[in-house]
Amino acid sequence: MLEELKRTVCEANLLLPKHRLVTLTWGNASGIDRAAGLIVIKPSGVDFEGMTPDDMVVVDLDGNVVEGSHRPSSDTPTHLELYRSFPSIGGIVHTHSRWATIFAQAGRSIPVLGTTHADHFYGEIPCTRSMMRHEIEDDYERETGRLIVETFSRTDPSDVPGVLVCAHGPFTWGADPIEAAKNAVVLEEVAFMGWHVVAIRSDLEPIERPLLDRHFRGRHGEDA
Amino acid sequence: MLEELKRTVCEANLLLPKHRLVTLTWGNASGIDRAAGLIVIKPSGVDFEGMTPDDMVVVDLDGNVVEGSHRPSSDTPTHLELYRSFPSIGGIVHTHSRWATIFAQAGRSIPVLGTTHADHFYGEIPCTRSMMRHEIEDDYERETGRLIVETFSRTDPSDVPGVLVCAHGPFTWGADPIEAAKNAVVLEEVAFMGWHVVAIRSDLEPIERPLLDRHFRGRHGEDA
Amino acid sequence: MLEELKRTVCEANLLLPKHRLVTLTWGNASGIDRAAGLIVIKPSGVDFEGMTPDDMVVVDLDGNVVEGSHRPSSDTPTHLELYRSFPSIGGIVHTHSRWATIFAQAGRSIPVLGTTHADHFYGEIPCTRSMMRHEIEDDYERETGRLIVETFSRTDPSDVPGVLVCAHGPFTWGADPIEAAKNAVVLEEVAFMGWHVVAIRSDLEPIERPLLDRHFRGRHGEDA
Amino acid sequence: MLEELKRTVCEANLLLPKHRLVTLTWGNASGIDRAAGLIVIKPSGVDFEGMTPDDMVVVDLDGNVVEGSHRPSSDTPTHLELYRSFPSIGGIVHTHSRWATIFAQAGRSIPVLGTTHADHFYGEIPCTRSMMRHEIEDDYERETGRLIVETFSRTDPSDVPGVLVCAHGPFTWGADPIEAAKNAVVLEEVAFMGWHVVAIRSDLEPIERPLLDRHFRGRHGEDA
Repeated sequence: MLEELKRTVCEANLLLPKHRLVTLTWGNASGIDRAAGLIVIKPSGVDFEGMTPDDMVVVDLDGNVVEGSHRPSSDTPTHLELYRSFPSIGGIVHTHSRWATIFAQAGRSIPVLGTTHADHFYGEIPCTRSMMRHEIEDDYERETGRLIVETFSRTDPSDVPGVLVCAHGPFTWGADPIEAAKNAVVLEEVAFMGWHVVAIRSDLEPIERPLLDRHFRGRHGEDA
Repeated sequence: MLEELKRTVCEANLLLPKHRLVTLTWGNASGIDRAAGLIVIKPSGVDFEGMTPDDMVVVDLDGNVVEGSHRPSSDTPTHLELYRSFPSIGGIVHTHSRWATIFAQAGRSIPVLGTTHADHFYGEIPCTRSMMRHEIEDDYERETGRLIVETFSRTDPSDVPGVLVCAHGPFTWGADPIEAAKNAVVLEEVAFMGWHVVAIRSDLEPIERPLLDRHFRGRHGEDA
Repeated sequence: MLEELKRTVCEANLLLPKHRLVTLTWGNASGIDRAAGLIVIKPSGVDFEGMTPDDMVVVDLDGNVVEGSHRPSSDTPTHLELYRSFPSIGGIVHTHSRWATIFAQAGRSIPVLGTTHADHFYGEIPCTRSMMRHEIEDDYERETGRLIVETFSRTDPSDVPGVLVCAHGPFTWGADPIEAAKNAVVLEEVAFMGWHVVAIRSDLEPIERPLLDRHFRGRHGEDA
Repeated sequence: MLEELKRTVCEANLLLPKHRLVTLTWGNASGIDRAAGLIVIKPSGVDFEGMTPDDMVVVDLDGNVVEGSHRPSSDTPTHLELYRSFPSIGGIVHTHSRWATIFAQAGRSIPVLGTTHADHFYGEIPCTRSMMRHEIEDDYERETGRLIVETFSRTDPSDVPGVLVCAHGPFTWGADPIEAAKNAVVLEEVAFMGWHVVAIRSDLEPIERPLLDRHFRGRHGEDA
């Protein structure tokens, strides 16, 4: 079932090591079939090397395994929470990529410092608040998803397709799993450049509104 | 038409991923045939992987497509403005390469801090001023070209074959597309080293004139 | 003899260049057969390129060569001291990997700044004190091992499977040589991210206890 | 003539791109046959890709070309000055490798901050003074060699097999060209780690004498 989506999700997962966003087995991509109400996600603890579409796991929106010989990624409850709350997204990626994770560990959002950022994210990429003790101890992965949703209470997730979970790492999303993976690549570039700009110019203001509008809207009017 | 130039422009484009100056599809190279008044440029949004000379697009100096099955790069109006204003150049490269873009985002020119810089750029690599609202909203890509030309009002573009567009990224040029691509490689090296020198010695003065003269003139007397 | 262990130790050694943890011949992995009381370790000064299980050297717990045509690694006395004092470990890795060595040279422990660290190390990764003159001049490699053991007088080496030897570099360990090598990979990631977090937020507090517990215990309950 | 030395010098040159010490054509290695009084050196401006022993150029100690179809490297007069003044060395390497060049541009020597440094360099790696106007304008490359010799007036070049030429870049040497190339690799590692240690601990003292002695002498007693 869902063979086409499995191929796409597998391809999105393989983009992560190709763009050097993962170390060992850290990271996962998923995609949703909205009509069927089913999610396809990377299996838990499986190496990226040699991964095939058949390794992917199918779960429903409550997290029950519908098909697959592996356990789904331990981050599945976070993905599910995002799919339930953000109806416009079709794919999600989670990594511990170096530069985005540095910002997440520092507890800092990434301000819009240039047009590379503005081409893909319509405003700063927010870092969540810290999680509270009860959130960590109760239903941690699901609460991580809720925390992300809370962070986007006044932001359209299509405008800013990514977030930094404080002390943890980034999640990105998109219309489909490939776009989510590409947004993970862009986020890493933007974080890399942002770190080095901030380190030598800590006083720098974000770019002005007209430049942000020109880039984000120009791109998303033209290409989408 | 212009088969030789298409091969050269394609080769210059492929030097960009080879030297790790591009992420995804960000970046483009072009070349001009001055006698014919025609420019060959990378198509818009096409992957570097598998790109061939036949993918290149031919446009005239007003930006009309003369040949090609793809749209020309969205940065074409910037390239055209530079070709019109800098009669000595034969090739142009634009990237979002990490280190040059960091300086562009920080709004800082790159001072001459060593002989690697002095071998290729006869003075600091300037960062433009910020663009004004009307420039951004009217004819953005062409105004980007005009801004670069304004920045070189008192500098010979053959002496300093590159610029940082504030909050955006670098453009480099040269006698031909291959030289423009090599200057993009040099700029990235110089930006990398410059960032790390400035970070530990923010008070450092540029190198003295005799050393700059010896390197730039020695090289460009001998080799050119 | 010990052919299976030789294969595993060789494989662990080859993970080091694969993950870019070694320059030239700097670095070595070993494993122990507790029942036989024998250690298998990388030979001294041999290139990683083309290394095979037959190149491995077998020594007893006093350091006598039992089998092998090469000399054992010059760091063998340090490995032996750790195997004698930490009965739960089955493999050890030593490298001069860049980021862990930077912390070792700076004489700084790596605080727990995120969940990547917490997933693998249950607390800060300690840097030893400096060695004293008599320790350096007498039986240097063995004293290096004793210094590590002293550093873990109040820490379970299974909770924190690695250390930074001050002014020198990291040692990691694990239940077997492959796990020791993977911990060297994780340590390098954690050191890389830690350095960049500290550089822009020197005041940052370590993550709170519930998050550390959730990650380390969750992982080591589930997977082990 | 000197076919064996040509092979070794070519191999030393090819170690430079292999260890990512060169960009474009920046960098060169040479070796000397003391009995014949002849030097073998990389040709000027030739790509490393596809370079063979037959491309090497043979010059005498006055710089006259004895054999070869290419011009010798433009840095040849610096190499010659070092061979004439340092009778113990058999090979020289010059690069613009990123991290060593950063220290050279910053005008800073690299202090001994760890055992990786102490294993190969018996003390700080010095940065020369700036060159004076007449030295730059008269016989620049030869004066560069004289400046290095002046910097080693009280240091044995076998103890510290490398130098940073202020505002320019590193030269390393060794008993033969391969050792000179390996010292260039070590210098780059040491510079990389040194930069990051200094950036977070600018007050750090060099390691103490006994540790320096133990590492440099231990290694050079045992292995040489």
